[in-house]
Amino acid sequence: MKYEIRFLPSETTTRAPEATTIFNAANWAGLAIDSTCGGRGTCGKCKVRVMQGSAPVREADRKFISPSELEQGWRLSCRAVLHSDCVVDIPRLMGNPKAALLGYGHHVILHPNVAKIYLELSEPNLEDQVSDLARIHAALDKEGYDVHSNITLWRSLPNILRGSDFQVTAVVVGDELIALEAGDTRAKNYGIAVDVGTTSVVCAIVNLNTGAVEAVKSDLNRQAPFGADVISRVSHTMMEKDGLVELQARIIETLNDLLEQLTAQSDIARENIYEAVIVGNATMLHLLLGIDPEPISVAPFIPTITQPVTFRAADIGLRLHPEARVSTLPHLGAYVGADIVAGILATDLTRNKDGKLRLLIDVGTNGEIVLGSVNGTLATAAPAGPAFEGAQIKNGMRASTGAIEGIQITPDGDVLLQIIGGDVKPIGIAGSGLVDAVAEMVRAGIVDASGRMIRVEDARGKLPDTLVERLVTIDGVRCFRLSDVESNIVLSQQDIRALQFAKGSIAAGVEVLMQQMGVTANDLHEVLLAGSFGSYINPASARTIGLVPWVPVEKIIAVGNSAGEGAKIALLSFREREAANRIPEFIEYVELSGRGEFNDIFTDALAFPKLTNDERPTTQEPLVMEMSSSFVIGPSS
Amino acid sequence: MKYEIRFLPSETTTRAPEATTIFNAANWAGLAIDSTCGGRGTCGKCKVRVMQGSAPVREADRKFISPSELEQGWRLSCRAVLHSDCVVDIPRLMGNPKAALLGYGHHVILHPNVAKIYLELSEPNLEDQVSDLARIHAALDKEGYDVHSNITLWRSLPNILRGSDFQVTAVVVGDELIALEAGDTRAKNYGIAVDVGTTSVVCAIVNLNTGAVEAVKSDLNRQAPFGADVISRVSHTMMEKDGLVELQARIIETLNDLLEQLTAQSDIARENIYEAVIVGNATMLHLLLGIDPEPISVAPFIPTITQPVTFRAADIGLRLHPEARVSTLPHLGAYVGADIVAGILATDLTRNKDGKLRLLIDVGTNGEIVLGSVNGTLATAAPAGPAFEGAQIKNGMRASTGAIEGIQITPDGDVLLQIIGGDVKPIGIAGSGLVDAVAEMVRAGIVDASGRMIRVEDARGKLPDTLVERLVTIDGVRCFRLSDVESNIVLSQQDIRALQFAKGSIAAGVEVLMQQMGVTANDLHEVLLAGSFGSYINPASARTIGLVPWVPVEKIIAVGNSAGEGAKIALLSFREREAANRIPEFIEYVELSGRGEFNDIFTDALAFPKLTNDERPTTQEPLVMEMSSSFVIGPSS
Repeated sequence: MKYEIRFLPSETTTRAPEATTIFNAANWAGLAIDSTCGGRGTCGKCKVRVMQGSAPVREADRKFISPSELEQGWRLSCRAVLHSDCVVDIPRLMGNPKAALLGYGHHVILHPNVAKIYLELSEPNLEDQVSDLARIHAALDKEGYDVHSNITLWRSLPNILRGSDFQVTAVVVGDELIALEAGDTRAKNYGIAVDVGTTSVVCAIVNLNTGAVEAVKSDLNRQAPFGADVISRVSHTMMEKDGLVELQARIIETLNDLLEQLTAQSDIARENIYEAVIVGNATMLHLLLGIDPEPISVAPFIPTITQPVTFRAADIGLRLHPEARVSTLPHLGAYVGADIVAGILATDLTRNKDGKLRLLIDVGTNGEIVLGSVNGTLATAAPAGPAFEGAQIKNGMRASTGAIEGIQITPDGDVLLQIIGGDVKPIGIAGSGLVDAVAEMVRAGIVDASGRMIRVEDARGKLPDTLVERLVTIDGVRCFRLSDVESNIVLSQQDIRALQFAKGSIAAGVEVLMQQMGVTANDLHEVLLAGSFGSYINPASARTIGLVPWVPVEKIIAVGNSAGEGAKIALLSFREREAANRIPEFIEYVELSGRGEFNDIFTDALAFPKLTNDERPTTQEPLVMEMSSSFVIGPSS
Repeated sequence: MKYEIRFLPSETTTRAPEATTIFNAANWAGLAIDSTCGGRGTCGKCKVRVMQGSAPVREADRKFISPSELEQGWRLSCRAVLHSDCVVDIPRLMGNPKAALLGYGHHVILHPNVAKIYLELSEPNLEDQVSDLARIHAALDKEGYDVHSNITLWRSLPNILRGSDFQVTAVVVGDELIALEAGDTRAKNYGIAVDVGTTSVVCAIVNLNTGAVEAVKSDLNRQAPFGADVISRVSHTMMEKDGLVELQARIIETLNDLLEQLTAQSDIARENIYEAVIVGNATMLHLLLGIDPEPISVAPFIPTITQPVTFRAADIGLRLHPEARVSTLPHLGAYVGADIVAGILATDLTRNKDGKLRLLIDVGTNGEIVLGSVNGTLATAAPAGPAFEGAQIKNGMRASTGAIEGIQITPDGDVLLQIIGGDVKPIGIAGSGLVDAVAEMVRAGIVDASGRMIRVEDARGKLPDTLVERLVTIDGVRCFRLSDVESNIVLSQQDIRALQFAKGSIAAGVEVLMQQMGVTANDLHEVLLAGSFGSYINPASARTIGLVPWVPVEKIIAVGNSAGEGAKIALLSFREREAANRIPEFIEYVELSGRGEFNDIFTDALAFPKLTNDERPTTQEPLVMEMSSSFVIGPSS
């Protein structure tokens, strides 16, 4: 079960699985809560007030919170877990915390790449004719900053210095002096962390002095009308004369509109946003930069840029401070992009000193898969197709109001639906609902291990009558009705096949990596499901359909928008950014297109794991399916 | 006397004083002649063919040139001196000289800041999925280039690499990879050297592979309508709302039009011009960059930038390769600019290992003065006013057709005029003519040491009648008629006063520096006259009027456009550029505005040196002149 949690005063709303801590839910929602202990309940800094909903008092709460405050709903957010929808007030951070907890329990020391330095310069006279620029450089040098500057800054110097009695704030990004501001403006220092997804775009304004997220918002990527996945976007640039220009304009428009709303909402001037860290898959970032993505889409799948790059926000029309800089994170390969690198940063997959093996899967049109530990890591991408996004599914839809996002089939034959928006009529099935539905149908015996739906005549007497009634045939295709007759939301045999292809591709990718590393599911310490979709999948269902390897269900963890978290970490800590930039050195990118064995493994992975009574799989038998022998999995398909 | 020399095949024409070598005259005209011995007549490389005019055969010629070639007019240009107008053919440099002789006998090893590197890259495949940019970087790294690149380059990569079968030429400027070109384009590699003067602008396209100047041209600075000197230009930016924008547009227009003509004439594509080295005084370069020059013009005279800077040509609208870079040289102070630093580079004043003391004077609206040697150097600027440019002079004009540029008064009382354009009627007096005229009038006794013109009644019997006839009074002011009655070009008492102020200011500046250094005229090894105007002054006349200290006349040397030469040197040799950038460290800038004694020294320097029979000065007596006691010399006046 997932619950809705609404945060005050920002009015940010998110949905999180049962037993998620408020601290983590807030983090996923982009609301960094102050903490120095890393969420262990020992520093007492992460106090929030639960206004509605239940949050039982825990041992740690009593140490830091007075009885009267407990009465008022105050709790340590890192201990408070969700058992119902709730409303939580996060007090504005006072003080100036030097660290923030971000990502998946990631403790980040604030050390942003942007520095604002207040300078009280001596005024020139006939005995001191040092030029304006040399005066600035000397003062910054004294503060330990050896910087470059450019013509835009030079042009601003004479007036700013003389208009401010030579008392100015220098804005340094990396080793670039990008601006001088009259007077002491150190308090206003912001950056943005952006995750450009193929489907949706998330942008957060982060206070670089405190680490606090001042505002966060997501929106659909306005390139969407040009195709749901990266391949159709690339096709558009190939077919249409100005396709590249058009797609670049769309994503910039998406970002600028988000910024418009975020700056208005937070009352932050865009002129005080000096840096952006942007992550996304390789195609999205190439389009963002206006670089032809075609070579990414055809063998041998070569991006123009895989390394991290820095450029001016103005170079792409992004409306921040006119001289603001944008930095990206590196890509591991054509189909495992900077978003995944950010996710690796946020989950500490390659650096966790426990040395344990973790599997990170970002489920989407492409399934990006990372398997490894501090001792070595592999990554690959498996083309899942659009089933998880609700496309090519008879009653599929995106996760919005009216979408079935969770399903339970009781032993008595009742079908319980969880619908986004609560007490509304269902109008379709979201990706997480699809996974739940198929998993429950497998458990209930409506679908067998090969993915075949039971015939009505075989079902009679074997399944409760209430379920048999739901088996219908529409246009000659077997279907299972999930909703009441009136709403008539059904799952068809073809839908199940589409899901099998999608999950089979990802599962095969996982299997290839596990084989290459010589490990099995038993060696996995954790399976981390990332991405907005991954966060909403029911871990047990993901396991039941074989999307993830068979591990104890508590080892399957939704880590939220780990890409966006990674971007925030890189924005707030240049040291972490450098660590992220080095991640590709520690990871071997596995290209599935070149592998003969992949098709065999994929064919095996199409089946659902056979369930025993305690839901553990028996030895799998190979599945026999009709499929074209020329069916090849690869990003070009 | 000056002679006109026309160079073939470029059809470049210049005027140079008697006894100038053809080699030096060609250098001044921007036609670098190949040489490895530095103009000592020992390498035999600098052969030219004298087509018209006389050039006696010299000893060195016989060593390197066959009798039949001598018969045809071939000479070593470094030995051939001018004794008449002439036409000289400079053979196109074949080969690829690794050094060029530039400036004032300055031997430059070619090592430009621009490198073109031809790369034959391996094409990517499924086993080699290195990104385009990483592939380029790796190849350049192997060649020893560790470079940055920017978004414009990234955008060009996919198409250029795939359109050229991965065979490309990298264009590296400094540590910036500014462009990739399909195929092997190393042969096309050009830069420009530019001297932005207040009055005129000189631009040369230089072949960076050979050091040859492919085309050179000068034009009036189109800011001229906004004032003849830097102060009136600055005033315009202060008085007019868009004055700065307007003046910047004017100089860019001047440069782009020059480039248009130069590229057409030389058949060089502007896309193959990758770097510009631009020198000029501080005000001109601030206007060029669009930086408010006002603080330069008012005490305490602070430029925004004195250090050398690099920026994109496109940042100022200069139309070279779209990613071409511009570098400037440093300024010594508000009124001793990068043009003088370039002149110091070209004359080797601060680095000549002979350790001898040299005085460099750039005579113009401001007189820039540098005094020193490898053992220490002082520099200052003295505001001369516009007299040398022909302004505020009754019949003054710029050095163009019809201007009197030289004058001789014979002992018999004949006045011989040298007029630009030859056999034309005189229509005015150029600056060099003014200096000549006053010097000759002093020598002839028409003007006394105090600058007073003789009264007709005093002249009778004392001067030849032909001269007495020329003494006239116009509007109550004594005048001396230089031309025939019909043309009626006269020099007035006021003109002489204007010249006294101009030369007195410069002479006082020289005197302040000599006093500060504790030296006298006897310690001077050479007096170098720089700038387009300095090159045309008759050295003897400059000495007679006291513009330069009294040294043997052969020590007074016109060094041509040393600023432009310095720019070329910096363009062709990054090592020399770095040396130029360090010049300010070795020079003390002396601010005259702050010096109490300057006005006294200036008052003394207004007089002309008293002449003995052999033209050596006797001890000077202080001159008593009526002048406002509030008269203050300073750039703000």
